[in-house]
Amino acid sequence: MILTERNSEKKLSIEKQVRPKRRKKNEISIEELAEGICNQNRTLLAQAITLVESKSNRHIMKAQELIQKVLPFTGKSIRIGVTGVPGAGKSTFIEALGKLLCEQGNRVAVLAVDPSSTITGGSILADKTRMETLATNKHAFIRPTPSRGQLGGVGRNTRETILLCEAAGYNIILIETVGVGQSEVVVRSMVDCFLLLVLTGAGDELQTLKKGVIELSDIIVVNKADGSNKQTAQFTAKDYNQILHYLTPVTTGWTPKAVTASALFNEGIEGVWGLIKTFSKDTKSSGFFEKRRHSQMKEWIYSAIRDSLEMNFFANRTIKAHLPMIEKNVVNGIQPVTLAVKELIDLYLNEK
Amino acid sequence: MILTERNSEKKLSIEKQVRPKRRKKNEISIEELAEGICNQNRTLLAQAITLVESKSNRHIMKAQELIQKVLPFTGKSIRIGVTGVPGAGKSTFIEALGKLLCEQGNRVAVLAVDPSSTITGGSILADKTRMETLATNKHAFIRPTPSRGQLGGVGRNTRETILLCEAAGYNIILIETVGVGQSEVVVRSMVDCFLLLVLTGAGDELQTLKKGVIELSDIIVVNKADGSNKQTAQFTAKDYNQILHYLTPVTTGWTPKAVTASALFNEGIEGVWGLIKTFSKDTKSSGFFEKRRHSQMKEWIYSAIRDSLEMNFFANRTIKAHLPMIEKNVVNGIQPVTLAVKELIDLYLNEK
Repeated sequence: MILTERNSEKKLSIEKQVRPKRRKKNEISIEELAEGICNQNRTLLAQAITLVESKSNRHIMKAQELIQKVLPFTGKSIRIGVTGVPGAGKSTFIEALGKLLCEQGNRVAVLAVDPSSTITGGSILADKTRMETLATNKHAFIRPTPSRGQLGGVGRNTRETILLCEAAGYNIILIETVGVGQSEVVVRSMVDCFLLLVLTGAGDELQTLKKGVIELSDIIVVNKADGSNKQTAQFTAKDYNQILHYLTPVTTGWTPKAVTASALFNEGIEGVWGLIKTFSKDTKSSGFFEKRRHSQMKEWIYSAIRDSLEMNFFANRTIKAHLPMIEKNVVNGIQPVTLAVKELIDLYLNEK
Repeated sequence: MILTERNSEKKLSIEKQVRPKRRKKNEISIEELAEGICNQNRTLLAQAITLVESKSNRHIMKAQELIQKVLPFTGKSIRIGVTGVPGAGKSTFIEALGKLLCEQGNRVAVLAVDPSSTITGGSILADKTRMETLATNKHAFIRPTPSRGQLGGVGRNTRETILLCEAAGYNIILIETVGVGQSEVVVRSMVDCFLLLVLTGAGDELQTLKKGVIELSDIIVVNKADGSNKQTAQFTAKDYNQILHYLTPVTTGWTPKAVTASALFNEGIEGVWGLIKTFSKDTKSSGFFEKRRHSQMKEWIYSAIRDSLEMNFFANRTIKAHLPMIEKNVVNGIQPVTLAVKELIDLYLNEK
């Protein structure tokens, strides 16, 4: 597989020129972008992802035009979610798995969903530059997804980025997220197979706490199973297999499994990949793979509808004019919230 | 404080009669309901909560009328959220705390937010009938909130139920939830003070996992600090205090604290209550108590707007007629999601 890097340097210099002045004439066309992506040009792929991530209306419409064009070339990958608490070794694991996959002739795209902590505003995920070996592999493509505090936004960006990567010939998409909060639910809703990375030391309470995430997982990897930790890790995997036994599997026809691995020492990674392949084969032959993809598309429609409705409402002039007074009345105990909101919604709907 | 139980038996028999046939004439008026609540009639309070929980449009408007009437008598309580993993002893703790508060002359309402597991559909929270002693105390009022799988719904119901309980003279509102998933974020957004119940045995990984919930907490109670567990619990509390030291406090001007207690043996409960009182005093004198209440009101407005917009959209005839075709086009890869949704939203907004 040869990457077509034409235009890349040219484009970069054009971009730099564009910044001070708007030079729309020099902008690359959607046709060129689509063709470049399908020719596996990673610079144009990166530009297309930036277009998808843009919040400007003009860019959003251009991005849709682009996605419409590449749509026939999408969907032909395995989409794999990887989650785990900070410190579980997700980056190291993805690097080890990605390296193995590239060696076997696959093309791997790694996307990272990085939700910011709602309280501190700080980033939870570790620096992406840690995946040094994979980042320099020409069969791999690494791209973090900016979150800007909106999980809805992350959803759209990441879903459309998956499509672009698939059109660019990446047949394995790894989506990394952190097993805290809501992001793993969002990622579960866009992948075929969901991996949970854990460490040893699962007390009763720990198991309960994790239950929500465990319930979403197809494969649990007890990582850092090396040295003196190896035996403990095997016991932990056994414990997890017992827990999984009592839970309703998230994927119809697949019994979730817990295995051990050491990403750092590159042990057990082939075993995990073997499991993913079996998972993919089994769910494809049962038809559940396709069924889940369809229902994920529907879910996506509904979340996009919710986002659009909100954006439109708050951009409305009458609403902008009335909202502060309504807020004031509610805060001062003059009007109950539900009633105040009802009046506001009626105003909005009758005006149109 | 004497509870006015007038009308209660009469009302129950009326309710039974109403079920087979609609007998609107016998329905209690909003004025009577409001008066009954302000007279601390717990049967009418229970009926009012049922009204608030109803999804029928007529009931929603009646409920709003009722809330408007009692609004001047609301807001004068301390609202306390209590969370913790299943098995942390929340029910026992709330019973012990509630009993103490009643003995000190308070009137205590216990509301339970019971989110169902999204995967299994099963209930996480334990049976409310476990709070036997508190349930028979005439100064206490216990009421679970039905969730029906919608956290938004839980939010509205519980928030309006809080207002009704306050109007009925309950000066302490305890809201129990489970420390898994999203419900604790919703509960945090409607309470003044947030308590987290934990058990001993906090390994490094456990601490990380809980970080999200720990960050929301004002007071952490290491429960079951009794017998041979007492010393370990004290070490665990010390560990938590160290973690808290590094986190940004959720309440401006209050450093979250971890303490030990044994709800079962009624030890340390007064200490926890003392902390809550200090918390309340400190935040009230700094003005943050009031400031948070105001911003919670605003948050409530925004979540109510989102819910209403969605309900209205999906009830629209044109949308009902077009949505299936759009879904089909998207699933079959004919149209990208964002574009399809844009067309649908345009259709909806232009029609009005």
